[in-house]
Parts: sequence; structure tokens; C-alpha cells
Amino acid sequence: MTLPYLTPLDPDTQRAHGIAAPWPLAIADRVRFSELDPLNHVNNAAYMSWFEGIRIRYFHEWDISHYRAGDPRLVIRRAEVDYLREMRMGEDYILAARTVSFRNTSFAMEYALWAGDLRATGSAVVVMLAPDGSGKMPIPEALRRRFEQVDGARPA
Amino acid sequence: MTLPYLTPLDPDTQRAHGIAAPWPLAIADRVRFSELDPLNHVNNAAYMSWFEGIRIRYFHEWDISHYRAGDPRLVIRRAEVDYLREMRMGEDYILAARTVSFRNTSFAMEYALWAGDLRATGSAVVVMLAPDGSGKMPIPEALRRRFEQVDGARPA
Amino acid sequence: MTLPYLTPLDPDTQRAHGIAAPWPLAIADRVRFSELDPLNHVNNAAYMSWFEGIRIRYFHEWDISHYRAGDPRLVIRRAEVDYLREMRMGEDYILAARTVSFRNTSFAMEYALWAGDLRATGSAVVVMLAPDGSGKMPIPEALRRRFEQVDGARPA
Amino acid sequence: MTLPYLTPLDPDTQRAHGIAAPWPLAIADRVRFSELDPLNHVNNAAYMSWFEGIRIRYFHEWDISHYRAGDPRLVIRRAEVDYLREMRMGEDYILAARTVSFRNTSFAMEYALWAGDLRATGSAVVVMLAPDGSGKMPIPEALRRRFEQVDGARPA
Repeated sequence: MTLPYLTPLDPDTQRAHGIAAPWPLAIADRVRFSELDPLNHVNNAAYMSWFEGIRIRYFHEWDISHYRAGDPRLVIRRAEVDYLREMRMGEDYILAARTVSFRNTSFAMEYALWAGDLRATGSAVVVMLAPDGSGKMPIPEALRRRFEQVDGARPA
Repeated sequence: MTLPYLTPLDPDTQRAHGIAAPWPLAIADRVRFSELDPLNHVNNAAYMSWFEGIRIRYFHEWDISHYRAGDPRLVIRRAEVDYLREMRMGEDYILAARTVSFRNTSFAMEYALWAGDLRATGSAVVVMLAPDGSGKMPIPEALRRRFEQVDGARPA
Repeated sequence: MTLPYLTPLDPDTQRAHGIAAPWPLAIADRVRFSELDPLNHVNNAAYMSWFEGIRIRYFHEWDISHYRAGDPRLVIRRAEVDYLREMRMGEDYILAARTVSFRNTSFAMEYALWAGDLRATGSAVVVMLAPDGSGKMPIPEALRRRFEQVDGARPA
Repeated sequence: MTLPYLTPLDPDTQRAHGIAAPWPLAIADRVRFSELDPLNHVNNAAYMSWFEGIRIRYFHEWDISHYRAGDPRLVIRRAEVDYLREMRMGEDYILAARTVSFRNTSFAMEYALWAGDLRATGSAVVVMLAPDGSGKMPIPEALRRRFEQVDGARPA
């Protein structure tokens, strides 16, 4: 089965590429030369950029923010990466994202990275601010429902 | 017509996306959040990474180097970018590369970047070194022929 | 008191710049334009590159690895960042690093980032491999002593 | 003579570090791990980020733009890099910048990079726009004089 890049993957395509339990958002990409370090592995910080990339795509697809004037401001309070196996030049990979829990003004996301097998996992705590950054903003009811129904998230 | 990402585009697909005279190598990609600057435009240096990316893909597709032990070393002697129109968050773009002329141990490449219209062009002078970097290496006859027949390049 | 950049800071200089309890390694630097995101803040992933930078300097200063042939391979197993307050264009900052605990073949590091006040903290678990990457390597006795005596680290 | 980092270097310090004819702006820095490529050299695109960095510092020091609301917008129309000799891990270097010529609404800059010897040179054409980006903006008379008197630039 071919792997379409930079486009949300449906559950069957995810399964066909080794993701036994499909995620609500999964997107394929490929390692770039500029992401390699002198040991010919992907640089540790690049994973953070990858997880950031799928997070921003998730914000877009879930209609949380399109990074336009008037959209909520989203601030990362904490980020974690677990490195399981190195990534190399030219490898295809699939990034996945989902929200696992939420509070009044923040939510917790998980990320995963596959290239055949699982290469890394990650997490982030995202705080929602008013568009002008003046203060925290409650997660709208429709988004809470989407977190619960699409992502399987729970109130924390 | 849909735009397949990260995969060499055939001439018809190139034409359908605004490239009137197709290039020997053209690949679609999308602007990433990490490439944006505080003015919400793609950072000037990111274009250099993009042209580097298609150059390395070109080296691979043209069988010049796969960045493995024993492959020739390729050194950039000079690089240029002409910025025609800014790129923005989330835009799809097509990168293209070709060799336009060659000497005994070096060749000149051109690059172009489209997103609907032409956004930037670039060039680079590439010098071929022996695998151990000890000295310049003549361009093999088969590669010179490929430059001439596939890219339309000329001896300089 | 002036702030010398890119050079280990002595305890008095650290105190003079707001670090009440000096760290075994602390180095000053300044935010770069290329690290800013469209909101004019330092990009979240840049902090990971900063912590990586001071980690590699620490490996050098503590004589753990100089990234030369024959040096142990150091692999990051896990990394975390806590973002406390945003960083902006042109700000001076101080990065600090120390080892807080160690096991037979791995050690846990902490990082901190000040710019007047504390802006972020981080941590990483580092695994030591043989120079050829073939397997884990015990932390040498001299390094364990250095972790204990200079960093105040403890066996985990 | 010691080399102070991230701070404009006076002519004597420039001369002491191998710059026979001092430049109006020169700043020392050091190669970072994240700038290295798999061949253990500084990545070609990193030079563009370095030249961008000194350009933005130059805009600040020459009072052209501080990247604040109401400042002119500065757009790069063209950039070039000549790579003379590779840069390696941990090397100290000095970046220098000057304006060499100017027209009504644009100016041409040159850059140079030393690490003992000259490693790279570069150039850029910078176009000045109104703060809202609505159109080109004439270079103020005071800035033209500064280009001529401090940089030795000429009308083009």
C-alpha cells in the first residue's frame, strides 16, 4: 500500500503501515538532510519540531486555531520526548497526535512516531489563552466534546 | 488535479500546477510552522535548506551520491537565491532542480520554487571530490551524458 | 557586572545575574532572529537545541566526549522541557546544566534557562554506549566521582 | 588577545584576529552542534542564517530597523554565499557586514566570515518598504550619509 505524504491518513492506511490502533490524526513525512546530525541520525531537537508540526496541524484540523488574528493563543507549558530508536536519512515516517485529557483551560496531548516500528513518543501540555494573550480561556464546549468523542480524551 | 507530495512529479502534473516548461526533477512539499519568521513569512534561510533538500534528492535520483561510504563527496562552492515573492504558513509549493552546465570536476545547478506563481529561483556550483575528500574528481562520462540528455546541460 | 558570552561563568557572575545557587556549568548567550516564531517568541523547539548545546559543552568540559573517533557514544533516551515564561528577540540568557543522578550506564541531567528570572527548566536521560555503538558502557569511576563531587549528583 | 563574543569588535581586535582591513561591524560567535551536517561540517544553509544574524544586528546598530511596529520593513531580494573553506564543530568565528552601495529604495550589503582565515563571503540586496509593507520607501538622507561615511558605500 502506498503512503500518501502530508495528508491525514485514514485508519486502514495507518494499520497497513504498522499502527495497530489508529490515531485520530496521523500524517506521513520523510527525514530531511538538514535534520541529520554528525552521527548521521536525526537530531534530538528535530523530533520536537516534528511534534510541533503535527500539533499545529491538529489545531487546524480540530478548528482550535488557524494562527489567524482573533484565534485563541496556544501556549506550550511542558513538552516531553521519549526516544526509542534512532531515525536515519531519507526514512519515511508517520507522526500521530491526540488529546488524552483536558481541564478548564488546558489539555494534554500525546504524540507518536513510527517508521515501521515505533521510534519515539511525546507529550505536551497546551494552555489556551485569549486571542490577545491577556489571560486563560476556557476550552469551548464543542471542543471538549470533540476531545471526548473523536480522541477518546477524559476530563482530568 | 491533486498534488502528490515528496515524490518526483511527471511533466503533466508539473504543467497542471503552473510549470509551463517542466523540469527534470520537481517535488511538492508544504511550508512548515518552524520555517516562519516573526513577520509570518518563510525565513530567508529556509529557502537555502529547501534548495539543499532538492539538490540532495537530485544527487540520489541521478545516482551521483547517496551519502554512503565510497560515494563521491559533493561540496558547494557558491549558492544564490533570488526572492521573488514571499511564502506563507501552510502553502503548498513545488521545488525543481536541474544541471545547466558542467566542467571537468564541477557542475552548475539551477533551482526554482513555485506556489501557483514563481516565488524564488536559485543556483549552486557543485564540486565533485574523491570519496575521502583528498582531491577533485572528474565527472564520470555517464553522468555528463545524463546532464546533457536529461537536463539539457552544456559543457561550460 | 558585564556578562561574558559563550564562556563558563564563575559562581559570582552567576549570582550577579540572578542565579542564587550557582550551577557547575552556566553559559550566556543571546536569542537569535532565526529562533523566533510568528508570535515573535522563541520557538518551543529552540529550547531543546539550547539544552542540547549546553549538554554537548558539558560533555566536553567534563571530558565525557569531545565527539571524536574513539569517544563514547551518548544517546538521549528522554528529554523534557518546562516552559515558564516566553523568550523574545535579542534577549540575553544564561543556560545551566548539571548531572543529578547516575546509574551503571546512564545519568540524568537537569537544565535551566534564566533571563533575569527563570524562563525554562529541562531534563534529559543520557545513555553511554561504546564508541562503536555496539552496547552500553559503564560510567567510568572518575566520572562518577566528578558527578558526585562537582555536580552533587547521587547514585540512583 | 581574547575574543569577546556577540559584541561589536573594535578595529584593533579585528586586526588581532586576522581581519587586516577592519569592517564597520564585526561580531564573534562559535559553531553550534545543531549547525553540523553528517559530514561533520557546518551545513551550507547555516551560513545564510549567520549572515542573516549579522544583517539584523547591523539593522539594529545602524538604527535602520529594530523589528518593532512602525519600523521600515526590510525585504531581501537576493542573497549569495561563496564557500571558501569548511567550518567545523566548536570553531570560533567572526562575522562582518557592511553596505557597499545604495539606490533610492534599496542597498547592497557584503558579508564575510573568518576563523583565522577567510572561510566564506556573501552578499544581499535589501529593499526598504513602508512599515505596513504597502510600497517601497526611500532611504532616509541620514542613513545614506551613514552608509557613505561609516561603511564607505557609494550610490549605485
